[in-house]
Amino acid sequence: MIKIKLSAIILILFILLSSGFSQGRKEISIPNIPGYITLKCDFHMHTVFSDGTVWPTVRVDEAWLEGLDAISITDHLENGSRRNEIKGDDNKSYDLAVSRAESLGLLLVKGAEITKGMPPGHFNVLFTTDANPLDNNDHRIGLKIAHDQGAFVMWNHPGWKAQAPDSAIWYDEHNYLYDQDWFQGIEVFNSTESYGEKVYRWAKDKNLAIICNTDIHGIVGMQYDLVNGHRPMTLVFAKEKSLGGIKEALFARRTAAYFNDSIVGREEHLEGIFKQSIEQKNHEIKLKKGFTDNIYIYNSSDIDYVLILQKKSKDFSVPEKIVLKSHETTLLPLTGITNNCDNIHEINLSFKISNFVVVPDKNLNISFKVINHN
Amino acid sequence: MIKIKLSAIILILFILLSSGFSQGRKEISIPNIPGYITLKCDFHMHTVFSDGTVWPTVRVDEAWLEGLDAISITDHLENGSRRNEIKGDDNKSYDLAVSRAESLGLLLVKGAEITKGMPPGHFNVLFTTDANPLDNNDHRIGLKIAHDQGAFVMWNHPGWKAQAPDSAIWYDEHNYLYDQDWFQGIEVFNSTESYGEKVYRWAKDKNLAIICNTDIHGIVGMQYDLVNGHRPMTLVFAKEKSLGGIKEALFARRTAAYFNDSIVGREEHLEGIFKQSIEQKNHEIKLKKGFTDNIYIYNSSDIDYVLILQKKSKDFSVPEKIVLKSHETTLLPLTGITNNCDNIHEINLSFKISNFVVVPDKNLNISFKVINHN
Amino acid sequence: MIKIKLSAIILILFILLSSGFSQGRKEISIPNIPGYITLKCDFHMHTVFSDGTVWPTVRVDEAWLEGLDAISITDHLENGSRRNEIKGDDNKSYDLAVSRAESLGLLLVKGAEITKGMPPGHFNVLFTTDANPLDNNDHRIGLKIAHDQGAFVMWNHPGWKAQAPDSAIWYDEHNYLYDQDWFQGIEVFNSTESYGEKVYRWAKDKNLAIICNTDIHGIVGMQYDLVNGHRPMTLVFAKEKSLGGIKEALFARRTAAYFNDSIVGREEHLEGIFKQSIEQKNHEIKLKKGFTDNIYIYNSSDIDYVLILQKKSKDFSVPEKIVLKSHETTLLPLTGITNNCDNIHEINLSFKISNFVVVPDKNLNISFKVINHN
Amino acid sequence: MIKIKLSAIILILFILLSSGFSQGRKEISIPNIPGYITLKCDFHMHTVFSDGTVWPTVRVDEAWLEGLDAISITDHLENGSRRNEIKGDDNKSYDLAVSRAESLGLLLVKGAEITKGMPPGHFNVLFTTDANPLDNNDHRIGLKIAHDQGAFVMWNHPGWKAQAPDSAIWYDEHNYLYDQDWFQGIEVFNSTESYGEKVYRWAKDKNLAIICNTDIHGIVGMQYDLVNGHRPMTLVFAKEKSLGGIKEALFARRTAAYFNDSIVGREEHLEGIFKQSIEQKNHEIKLKKGFTDNIYIYNSSDIDYVLILQKKSKDFSVPEKIVLKSHETTLLPLTGITNNCDNIHEINLSFKISNFVVVPDKNLNISFKVINHN
Repeated sequence: MIKIKLSAIILILFILLSSGFSQGRKEISIPNIPGYITLKCDFHMHTVFSDGTVWPTVRVDEAWLEGLDAISITDHLENGSRRNEIKGDDNKSYDLAVSRAESLGLLLVKGAEITKGMPPGHFNVLFTTDANPLDNNDHRIGLKIAHDQGAFVMWNHPGWKAQAPDSAIWYDEHNYLYDQDWFQGIEVFNSTESYGEKVYRWAKDKNLAIICNTDIHGIVGMQYDLVNGHRPMTLVFAKEKSLGGIKEALFARRTAAYFNDSIVGREEHLEGIFKQSIEQKNHEIKLKKGFTDNIYIYNSSDIDYVLILQKKSKDFSVPEKIVLKSHETTLLPLTGITNNCDNIHEINLSFKISNFVVVPDKNLNISFKVINHN
Repeated sequence: MIKIKLSAIILILFILLSSGFSQGRKEISIPNIPGYITLKCDFHMHTVFSDGTVWPTVRVDEAWLEGLDAISITDHLENGSRRNEIKGDDNKSYDLAVSRAESLGLLLVKGAEITKGMPPGHFNVLFTTDANPLDNNDHRIGLKIAHDQGAFVMWNHPGWKAQAPDSAIWYDEHNYLYDQDWFQGIEVFNSTESYGEKVYRWAKDKNLAIICNTDIHGIVGMQYDLVNGHRPMTLVFAKEKSLGGIKEALFARRTAAYFNDSIVGREEHLEGIFKQSIEQKNHEIKLKKGFTDNIYIYNSSDIDYVLILQKKSKDFSVPEKIVLKSHETTLLPLTGITNNCDNIHEINLSFKISNFVVVPDKNLNISFKVINHN
Repeated sequence: MIKIKLSAIILILFILLSSGFSQGRKEISIPNIPGYITLKCDFHMHTVFSDGTVWPTVRVDEAWLEGLDAISITDHLENGSRRNEIKGDDNKSYDLAVSRAESLGLLLVKGAEITKGMPPGHFNVLFTTDANPLDNNDHRIGLKIAHDQGAFVMWNHPGWKAQAPDSAIWYDEHNYLYDQDWFQGIEVFNSTESYGEKVYRWAKDKNLAIICNTDIHGIVGMQYDLVNGHRPMTLVFAKEKSLGGIKEALFARRTAAYFNDSIVGREEHLEGIFKQSIEQKNHEIKLKKGFTDNIYIYNSSDIDYVLILQKKSKDFSVPEKIVLKSHETTLLPLTGITNNCDNIHEINLSFKISNFVVVPDKNLNISFKVINHN
Repeated sequence: MIKIKLSAIILILFILLSSGFSQGRKEISIPNIPGYITLKCDFHMHTVFSDGTVWPTVRVDEAWLEGLDAISITDHLENGSRRNEIKGDDNKSYDLAVSRAESLGLLLVKGAEITKGMPPGHFNVLFTTDANPLDNNDHRIGLKIAHDQGAFVMWNHPGWKAQAPDSAIWYDEHNYLYDQDWFQGIEVFNSTESYGEKVYRWAKDKNLAIICNTDIHGIVGMQYDLVNGHRPMTLVFAKEKSLGGIKEALFARRTAAYFNDSIVGREEHLEGIFKQSIEQKNHEIKLKKGFTDNIYIYNSSDIDYVLILQKKSKDFSVPEKIVLKSHETTLLPLTGITNNCDNIHEINLSFKISNFVVVPDKNLNISFKVINHN
């Protein structure tokens, strides 16, 4: 190529700068919980600097538009597939994206992916201070350096078919790494795969942070329905919206996985989300045999809560399944069925939320209370 | 970076291959016209190999998903802005994308952009056989080589503010290039800009092919609303769906611009699209004073036709404006207003289509005929 | 109320006439099948003239806007609940709606509902010539008169919980009515309820027309998601689009039920719909070990076809489940897995369509063929 | 008709009760303003008890689902068009709807429409205690009785083409009625018609409450796009959510019109809505020549605010038009253009909101302030 005049460069830059996006940021309505800010995060993604197909700034733009608060670009360290086209060391994608992130107010966690056969598989290093020394044939060396850098490390897609054809296996090598405290989190969901109760149980029993990432290589909008749905993400319950806040929360295991219309996490966090999402609009009804009165419940979150009734009453009927749709007020109708209605004072309706999983194998239980005002 | 074992490479390739898209191709409903296939094309786009932000295969994937039949990747020849990260000659983006295009059945036209200050501005070369020799400080040399290669060349964004702050100007240099037959087309629309009647007139008077492109640098889905709308495109009326078919049609100037909900082109093409889009379901009505009867019109295309009545009748009233919405059957109500209804035999309703522009400055006129059956 | 001047009446009429709808008719894309036109019909609905909440013309307007070809308003004959507000005999709702239907080109079948306790439950009479004499305390008398009028009669919602708390029961009385040929069809789906394999089997074994209706009392748009879905309907495969054509097809049992994203019917009709819905775009691929080539399938219908692979191959891999989305072209990727690829000549992929039920209990089987071109 | 057994009636009632709606209430996000609750109201609609096409309860269900807080059913008093089918006095539609409204928590204002030729045209009476005596050939008698009942009265659709072919006219009779204080509000918008600056001026100069209603006769969902838009409504700024609260606010003229994406009203109310809708996320930027920094603005309301820049700066460029889209965070980019950037301390950006009209003829002006932090 021939060098061009400054004016042409300016022209080209002008195109580059103006070729932004015409949309605004779509905020995600998942509420804060008592004591913590709920940050929406994706800690696993790739660019042209490993085997992804976009420039690092695209990851920032996508994340901003799609309502995320923080991301980490985690290009494979061991990667030679594009050596004929791409130059740059293992910090390159971070370096190219960080100023764009700053101008958009998005938190960019410096990261990298250690990419090995199974065991031990792939590991994401977050909050690395320099990714180059992590790139070592011996994963133990890379992980030790990450640890020495103060990084937070997660085991990626433990049940990925290409490395775990039957199901996720916890090898001796994982015991070794775990005992050294060289990883503190685990992906329970990656891309479009959920690894189920087995991995949820590891997260609980071994006290690993519950992580959910896209592992996106292409364009997020091509892989997920962003109009009616959302990309998978890790919810981080942080004391403040900052890189430090995220790091503290990750090490403290205050995270949950949000994929499709499900959230998987710890009871106190899930309960916090539900309670801050919904508002019961009336606390009194009139129960009368053969008549229906309603409880109104407003759900201000993006989540459709699917409630399953826990116990039928002999005094009144109520739907066995009810969906509290996102941004809607739902009627919960109670129809009196006995003559006993006048003697009922307080009604307590217990439901489990079928799309809220408390690790490893329970659903979150919630209830609504009303006074019968006769 | 350290070289990795084959197994790791295979793993990475597996990720790459599987990181496709989860959507299908959304076909664009714009009908063929008598004698020609209507191909949906975008002949102007960039990748990381100039100042775009995606790998060349992304341009193929986007185009396929968004219903296009053909594209050209036209990276700037004069481009050094990413020399620290990107290696490769001026054919690189084509070379990396062509097999992906073939496996998807998308036609990939080999292209490049000659990028100069004004005059003469930027020119896209389509059907180049080798882009490297086009990269010359002297645009005349580059354009002559393009011509000798048998390429089709268009003048890009003639009214782009950065090069034409007031409005598009046809310089002497454009006369020179035009007289040599070194360009045969002109962008009347680029990205989000329409260059209006002035440029439409050039297209008509100088018999240049009417071209409409995205000039996309980022992600198409971030810049256009692909759910309710579409990306800008050039409609090419070809004898066959092939690279040769496109080339023949371009040189024959059988093209139109489709942007937002408008189409700009030549009368015979626009009339062909309209007539193949709509079906008048009934050809008889009963007109009676004070009563309303309807003509039903089904529009099978993606275009909302905005019709403006050309002349009121004293015998019946009919809406002055009516929109034939995409994929809907619309009622066109006629209400009798005189006692003369019985004497009317044939009714001819003339409308102009306000969003169909016949270059340089007319709207397409169409009409509906019904027999009054009394 | 006081009588008003003519001018005021005209004003009011003007309001009435102008208070139409601002939308067009959304056509339903379910194709015709060889030899027959596929008519979209709803044969069960109510108005203020029994226990519905709309004026009869609303049923016509809804049906037209929502893409139906024919409806029947079937108000309950035995109905006194609104005698303080509503006057009119059992033909009234038809009489008030028929001219509106004619001006919209919608076929209005004159109908009524015989409404009895179980057995025998509720029966819809279509093509009655006069509904008044059908209104008799003895359902046998009503059904005999219907039969003498040449009407087509269906058993409504046989599994409706209020009359069949456990599941649908075929009583002796149904044998009696069936032996008289006093009913010829049965609702396998009503409103939001499917009556499952048991009732499908009756339809098959007793050769009853398969019927699917809304039984709408309120507003269709409040009960069904008309943006992303559709109202339940009966598909009638008729020789012509006319009242006579519908009647002939009903008696000939050429019908299917279309609810949610499922169709339930007879094999030849379901196969016809599938084959006319899809177009396999390529008939040759190149199979190579470790590489993927694609079959492209375009689905021009409104139905998302859910295909389940019937048998895996040892030579290539193909997804076990694939959804052919409505109005999209879907890739069906084949990846070579043995060295044997060159020796394969023809590939035949068999799938069952999980949302197409051939009564009583099978799924429709279909296949795609390609030549391997090496 | 023949009388039926109780069991059949119960069956029918069961159908009626269960034929509700399957959707939830879509809440409208227009914020409260300091000191007042913003109630969403529609005070003009019809049922089968005049020339509408739905049962009164449908009006309640529609309003609840569509997020309204209060409605009034205002059937024409002078109405004989359905005397062959409909029985009932002028309070009937209220009487039939009120218990349904109560069970849904919707406020139902008892109303009626006095329907006369022009002058004076049509008038809606809200908070009537008995509609029957309002039904008088002499509109003065009806309006006087309304006044004596303590009712709030509005002049309906003053610019309706059928009564005001050229434009709205304020007749002597209107002076008479106004001087008696027999009406206190005026529709500036009705159905799909805006009466423009002329009527806005009357509202302002004569201190009439600004009213916006659907005047719906058919189904709301057929006439308005409820998915992407909303029905027209009057915003009432009330001290409490109750019938009394609405009445007090109407007489105090604390109302605004909300139609399409526009709000028309008084400055203090419009400013309150805007300020409670938006949150400026950052209050500091760094302005540098040739670089862009952003102000982020989150809009939590349902309204897309269209901002037009009031004055360009010589120090930085900023878009001349910007849309703050509903439920999105929008970037407001500032690009430094002089060397003077370091000396700028505070930046004040003034915009007018083109879709917020302060009666009679101004747009609401607002501004954003940031500190330049160099």
